[in-house]
Amino acid sequence: MAPAAEVSTNQQFLGDETRNRQEIGNNVNASYKVTVVGSGNWGSVAAKLIASNTLKLNSFHDEVKMWVYEETLPNGDKLTDVINQTNENVKYLPGIKLGKNVVADPDIANAVKDANMLVFVTPHQFMEGICKRLEGKIKEEGVQAISLIKGMEVKKEGPCMISTLISEKLGVNCCVLMGANIANEIAVEKFSEATVGYREDEEVAERWVKLFGTPYFQVSAVQDVEGVELCGTLKNVVAIGAGLVDGLDMGNNTKAAIMRIGLREMKAFSKLMFPSVKDSTFFESCGIADVITTCLGGRNRRVSEAFARNGGKRSFDELEAELLQGQKLQGVSTAREVYEVLSHRGWQELFPLFTTVHKICIGLLPPSAIVEYSEHTPNFSLVEGSAEYY
Amino acid sequence: MAPAAEVSTNQQFLGDETRNRQEIGNNVNASYKVTVVGSGNWGSVAAKLIASNTLKLNSFHDEVKMWVYEETLPNGDKLTDVINQTNENVKYLPGIKLGKNVVADPDIANAVKDANMLVFVTPHQFMEGICKRLEGKIKEEGVQAISLIKGMEVKKEGPCMISTLISEKLGVNCCVLMGANIANEIAVEKFSEATVGYREDEEVAERWVKLFGTPYFQVSAVQDVEGVELCGTLKNVVAIGAGLVDGLDMGNNTKAAIMRIGLREMKAFSKLMFPSVKDSTFFESCGIADVITTCLGGRNRRVSEAFARNGGKRSFDELEAELLQGQKLQGVSTAREVYEVLSHRGWQELFPLFTTVHKICIGLLPPSAIVEYSEHTPNFSLVEGSAEYY
Repeated sequence: MAPAAEVSTNQQFLGDETRNRQEIGNNVNASYKVTVVGSGNWGSVAAKLIASNTLKLNSFHDEVKMWVYEETLPNGDKLTDVINQTNENVKYLPGIKLGKNVVADPDIANAVKDANMLVFVTPHQFMEGICKRLEGKIKEEGVQAISLIKGMEVKKEGPCMISTLISEKLGVNCCVLMGANIANEIAVEKFSEATVGYREDEEVAERWVKLFGTPYFQVSAVQDVEGVELCGTLKNVVAIGAGLVDGLDMGNNTKAAIMRIGLREMKAFSKLMFPSVKDSTFFESCGIADVITTCLGGRNRRVSEAFARNGGKRSFDELEAELLQGQKLQGVSTAREVYEVLSHRGWQELFPLFTTVHKICIGLLPPSAIVEYSEHTPNFSLVEGSAEYY
Repeated sequence: MAPAAEVSTNQQFLGDETRNRQEIGNNVNASYKVTVVGSGNWGSVAAKLIASNTLKLNSFHDEVKMWVYEETLPNGDKLTDVINQTNENVKYLPGIKLGKNVVADPDIANAVKDANMLVFVTPHQFMEGICKRLEGKIKEEGVQAISLIKGMEVKKEGPCMISTLISEKLGVNCCVLMGANIANEIAVEKFSEATVGYREDEEVAERWVKLFGTPYFQVSAVQDVEGVELCGTLKNVVAIGAGLVDGLDMGNNTKAAIMRIGLREMKAFSKLMFPSVKDSTFFESCGIADVITTCLGGRNRRVSEAFARNGGKRSFDELEAELLQGQKLQGVSTAREVYEVLSHRGWQELFPLFTTVHKICIGLLPPSAIVEYSEHTPNFSLVEGSAEYY
């Protein structure tokens, strides 16, 4: 069908790199100042999306600050200087213009001091340290945050969510944005979707939707921050299962079954952890679509496939080092953390896929065990229908 | 995890081809006699699954009748004779033993006359004729039916479901079985799942689950015959969309988004047609898993990919003839039929994916239009929350 009118309007602004720095920042009615904390591959794409929107929406200041962990490039230049001169993150998103209104800053306190919209997009293991550095540095009132960080930690007493960490350490409300978001595909403006999870304030959620959404990046909001955030982590465990199926050459039927069972266990686990989690969240981009993307491509799937092809004889650590050149797998550690929760509460039988993935990862079961468990309908109906396990 | 006890027990019976014909049929307590109407690729696999279970479950007669549309093979043999001599459907499932207790019969009236469980698995366009031939030929009482037929017809006034056709023409209750079921993968006993949809009688549903289920073919039942059956048809429209994305080289993000939007429109369309349809059905194998399988492989996806690679310059008919050697695409005709319902009721804007797929198929829009529509949240929330369109 023909694009709707609003889409056509939006498209006038896409790839609009012609405004120069002098024109930027003149929006006197703007209420919101955005800072992106993080500048890796996904952080840079997020800055590009946001910068295209702040230029055209009156309620946002045009300028988008981006905190960059300073690095010296091989030619001796500072990364922040190169970003500000070329509008390109030459190290983590080469070849893509971020927009002239993105301003890189190596000083985190300076980057956040005027912002009332903070976008967090760093590796999750850095967030505790970053929160400490930000204490007392952000504005005292009216600050909203959003986390794009996938892969929080699951501890025995339950998941330790990054959005909760940010809320508690900084005293701000924190939404999340998750979805089927391979950064390099969004960078070249291929169509995709994402989901904002929010706690209570629908108006704030709508503001994030406006800030991120473009015709090629469709964002919708659901009132279920825990459900959305848990999707972003748990999908990596499912991807390990899907990779095993690929490595065993089991075919598309089996892979679809494992993805489905995985999504079901994601839903059941999330609902047991947080009874407020909604079934409908798993139909959103953060649920089914991200499971699909992660199980079709992605590093967890890839290393897991190699693990199965080697009959489990080479460890995940070894294969990770060989195949990922320093990038890290999250699925294996998340599977272990989820298993700790399950065994702590006696729930292993309710989650045959999660349990089996962990046992395969640590060598207790062979890769073929991924298709050797059976579905226990009575147990599963407990998960679906009963509150006694909450 | 280690297979549960029930699974181990089941596995003793798998591939048990050692019992000879004399031992078969001696089960004096058996209440249920099964006939499979149809003997193509999927019908033969269904007969194999069923035959492995009737041997081990006391409530079923060992013998499974299979109506075979008689054909003369190139060497002059009759297909039914070869099946009964070799236990193999050499034409449609070569290399796979069906079980000695499967008895092929070219006479449809004779095949069904003693049966009280009828399994229908033929191309959907033959079902009206088959029902006519069966009128007055089946037992007068106690007959249950199940349809494995994907691809019923969607007419302006609503979908004409195969299970309804069977129920009305034969005066029997009819369940359905759908799922991520590539027949050749199940034939070699690769792990997969399926969903039985039933109307009211849970005991009957459980009987079908027992008759089909094996450790490698996990069947569950949901009380939603329309939802399950519509999944089996509508997924082919989504597969056309996914194939276009492949042909445009849009990547996994976009493909996941199209699959997700497709599943959402399947759900919304089914609920508008039949308000009793349940959201949870789309989490079952017939929903998400079948969408995944069909969008990863499958002939609809394949022809649609070729269509997009040719920039829409060669018609679906032409590509179908070239690529499928006589097999038929269902997605294109289903998209047309769905579109007729949508335009008849003024619902096109509620279903941008279904509408766009149809317009691309008939050349009204270019293949790239598949990613050029936008999501209308207010409209969609009408579909989700309001009864006024029912």
